[in-house]
Amino acid sequence: MNPSIIREILKLTERPDVISLAGGLPSPDAFPVEALREASARVLRDTPREALQYAASEGHGPLRDWVAGELRGLGLVVDPGQVLITTGSQQGLDLVGKVLIDAGSRVAVETPTYLGALQAFAPQEPVFAAVPGDDGGPAPEALDAVADARFLYLLPNFQNPSGRCLDEARRAALAGAAERLGLPLLEDDPYGALWYDAPPPPPLAARWPEGTVYLGSFSKVLAPGLRLGYVVAPAPLYPKLLQAKQAADLHTPGFNQRLVHEVLRDGLLATHLPGVRDRYRQQRDAMAAALARHLPAGCRWQRPSGGMFFWVTLPEGLDTLALLPAAVARGVAYVPGEPFHAGTPQRNTLRLSFVTASAERIERGIAAIGAVVREALADAAPAAPAADRRAA
Amino acid sequence: MNPSIIREILKLTERPDVISLAGGLPSPDAFPVEALREASARVLRDTPREALQYAASEGHGPLRDWVAGELRGLGLVVDPGQVLITTGSQQGLDLVGKVLIDAGSRVAVETPTYLGALQAFAPQEPVFAAVPGDDGGPAPEALDAVADARFLYLLPNFQNPSGRCLDEARRAALAGAAERLGLPLLEDDPYGALWYDAPPPPPLAARWPEGTVYLGSFSKVLAPGLRLGYVVAPAPLYPKLLQAKQAADLHTPGFNQRLVHEVLRDGLLATHLPGVRDRYRQQRDAMAAALARHLPAGCRWQRPSGGMFFWVTLPEGLDTLALLPAAVARGVAYVPGEPFHAGTPQRNTLRLSFVTASAERIERGIAAIGAVVREALADAAPAAPAADRRAA
Repeated sequence: MNPSIIREILKLTERPDVISLAGGLPSPDAFPVEALREASARVLRDTPREALQYAASEGHGPLRDWVAGELRGLGLVVDPGQVLITTGSQQGLDLVGKVLIDAGSRVAVETPTYLGALQAFAPQEPVFAAVPGDDGGPAPEALDAVADARFLYLLPNFQNPSGRCLDEARRAALAGAAERLGLPLLEDDPYGALWYDAPPPPPLAARWPEGTVYLGSFSKVLAPGLRLGYVVAPAPLYPKLLQAKQAADLHTPGFNQRLVHEVLRDGLLATHLPGVRDRYRQQRDAMAAALARHLPAGCRWQRPSGGMFFWVTLPEGLDTLALLPAAVARGVAYVPGEPFHAGTPQRNTLRLSFVTASAERIERGIAAIGAVVREALADAAPAAPAADRRAA
Repeated sequence: MNPSIIREILKLTERPDVISLAGGLPSPDAFPVEALREASARVLRDTPREALQYAASEGHGPLRDWVAGELRGLGLVVDPGQVLITTGSQQGLDLVGKVLIDAGSRVAVETPTYLGALQAFAPQEPVFAAVPGDDGGPAPEALDAVADARFLYLLPNFQNPSGRCLDEARRAALAGAAERLGLPLLEDDPYGALWYDAPPPPPLAARWPEGTVYLGSFSKVLAPGLRLGYVVAPAPLYPKLLQAKQAADLHTPGFNQRLVHEVLRDGLLATHLPGVRDRYRQQRDAMAAALARHLPAGCRWQRPSGGMFFWVTLPEGLDTLALLPAAVARGVAYVPGEPFHAGTPQRNTLRLSFVTASAERIERGIAAIGAVVREALADAAPAAPAADRRAA
C-alpha cells in the first residue's frame, strides 16, 4: 500500500491561512446540530442500556427498516434483511473487497475513480482494470473486455472526483451489459441526495438487483463524524458480508445508529436537505463563475449537477502534483488528479471541492489557482529550453 | 469463512426466558450513563462542528495522549504518536491482520484463543499454528517451533475464553523467547482493568516494546456500544497500520472519541472502576460457588482472577456443541469451546460469562447446566449401546 496523498494534503487544511478546496469536507454549517443534540439526550434518557451495549452485527433494526423504505422511494425495492449498517460507507468497500476479491483477481473501475475505493480494495491485492469511457461515464461496450472481473465499481451519481452523473440511457446500457455478461456491479452512492438541478435517475441496482451491491451513506446528508453508512446486498451474498462485518469491528456503534434513527424518524431530512442543497448550489455556482473568470484558455471542466466536486483538466504537459507546493504557497490547496487513476494517470487533472469553503473564499482560492496555472504555462512556453532545464 | 456460532447463540440471549451465560456482554448496570449523558451534552454544545466532521485517521489527539499516559501507569512507555484509535479493539485485530499476514503465512495462537481474532485474521488466509502450553499459558519453549510465524497472538490478562492470567515469570520467559527468535507479539488486553484479586503484571509490550503490538479497549471499562479501542504499535509499523485504518473506515467516529475523552478527563475511571470490579467479583464468586455445587465429578475449571469468563472442561467424550440444544431447552445458554480452537478442538469444553447475569440467575443457569451434564453422562454410561445408537 502507498502513502495517502489525500490525507497528507488534508493536514494542510488545518492551517487557517490556506483555503482548502482539497478535502471533501461537508460544511459544518450544514450539520443538524440542534436535532442531534436533542436526539442524543433522548437516546441516553430512554434507551441507554441498549445504546451502550454490544449489538447485532447487522445493525439497528429500525434504522435498517428506514433505509429500506428510503430506497423504495428511489425505485430500489429491498427487504430490510438485505441492509447491513456499516461504519461509514468506506467500510462497505472494505467488506465487499474482503468477500469478493482474491489476490490477483481483476476489479474493473472507472478512470478516474474514488481514491478511497482503490485503497479499500488494495489489501486483497486485486489487479485493477480501468474501463474507458467519455464525459458521460464508462462505455458499455467496454465491459466485454472486463467480463472476467470480480465486479465493476461504479459511482453513478456526481462521481468523486469527476462530478459526472450517469444519465438514464447510460445506466440502462451499463446495467444491461453487466447483466448479459454476469459481471456484478458495486454501486457506490454517497452523493445521490446532493442534487442541485434535478434528482438523479434511479440507481443501477433497481435495474439489476440480483447482480448489484449498493452502498449508501449518512455522511453527506447528516454528518460524517458519526461514521454511518450501509450496504444493500443480494440475499445470497449477505451472510458473507455479515461475517466480514463482524470480524472487522463486531458492529457499528449502536449509540450512533440510534441517534441517527431518531432524527430520521422525526423527518429531519425533508426539512434539512433543501437547505443543504441551496447552500451547496450557491457554492457550486460561485466556483463555476470563478473558474470561468480565473482559469486561462486551454483548461477544461464540466459544471457538476450535484455532489461536491469540480474536476479540472489543465493544458497538456502540466503536472498538478508538481504545482501543488506553488498553490499552497499562494494559500490554496486542491487534490492532484493522479491518485484517482487506477491505470495511466492524467497528470494534468485536479479535483476541487466546493462544499467546504465559502463563496468568497472559493473566489480567492480559484484566483490563486489561476495565477499558478498561468505562471506554469509561462514557464513551459519556450519548449526547448524547458526541456533542457528538466534535463539539468 | 465459517458462520459464526457466537453470533447465532447471542440471538438466543434476546429470549427473556433464556439465562445467557454465553455472550461476553458487560452488565448494563455498570455503564456510566449519567457521565456519558453529561459529556454528550457538553461535546455537542462546545465542539459540535469538530465532533461531527471528518477527522484524522490517527484518532482524537487528546484521547491518544490520555491512552499514552494511562499505559505509562502500567509500565509501558509509549509516545502518543504510536497510538491509533480504532473502532473497537476488534478492528485492531483486522488492521494487524491486513498489514502482517499474507495468504499462507503462519500465525501462532494460544489454544484455546479468542474466536473473534481467528475470524479477524481469516480474510487474509493465514495458516494457524496452535502453541501448546499448560494452565499457566503457552509454553515458552514451544515458540521455537513457530519462529517463522508472522506473529504470536496472546491475551495475557484473564484470557477469553480460558480466564487465565499469565504470571510474571511466564511473561518474562515468553517475551524473552520471542525477542530471541525475532517473533513479533500481538498482545490483546481488553480485560486488564477488570481484576478482582490483584492487578495483573505489566504487559509483555513493556518488556519488548520494539517487537510488540498492543491492543486496548474501552468496551469493558466504559461501554461496548461506543466501539472504541486502540492499537499501540512500534514506530516503524505505525504508518502501515494507519493506512489500513484509513482504508477500512477513514476514522473512528469523532463524536464517540470526544465523548469518551470527556469522561476520562474528568477522572471517571478512578471512581467508576472500583464499583465495576466489586460487581463482577461478586458475580464471579457466585459462579464459582454454583459450579462447585451443581457440576458433577469429572468436570474441571479454574477460578479466574479477573475478566469475564470461566472455562469448563467436562468429562472426556461429551460434546458441548451437541449438548447446547438441551441446555437451551432448560433455559440456559453457554458457548461451546470448539470454535475457540485453531488446531484440534477439545469438544468437551465450554465458556461461561459471569458478567451479564445476576448472581441469582447465575445460580439457576449453572444448576440447569449441571442437570444437562448429568443427563448426558447417564446417557453415555452404557458405552457399547450408545455407540450403536450413533451408528443408527
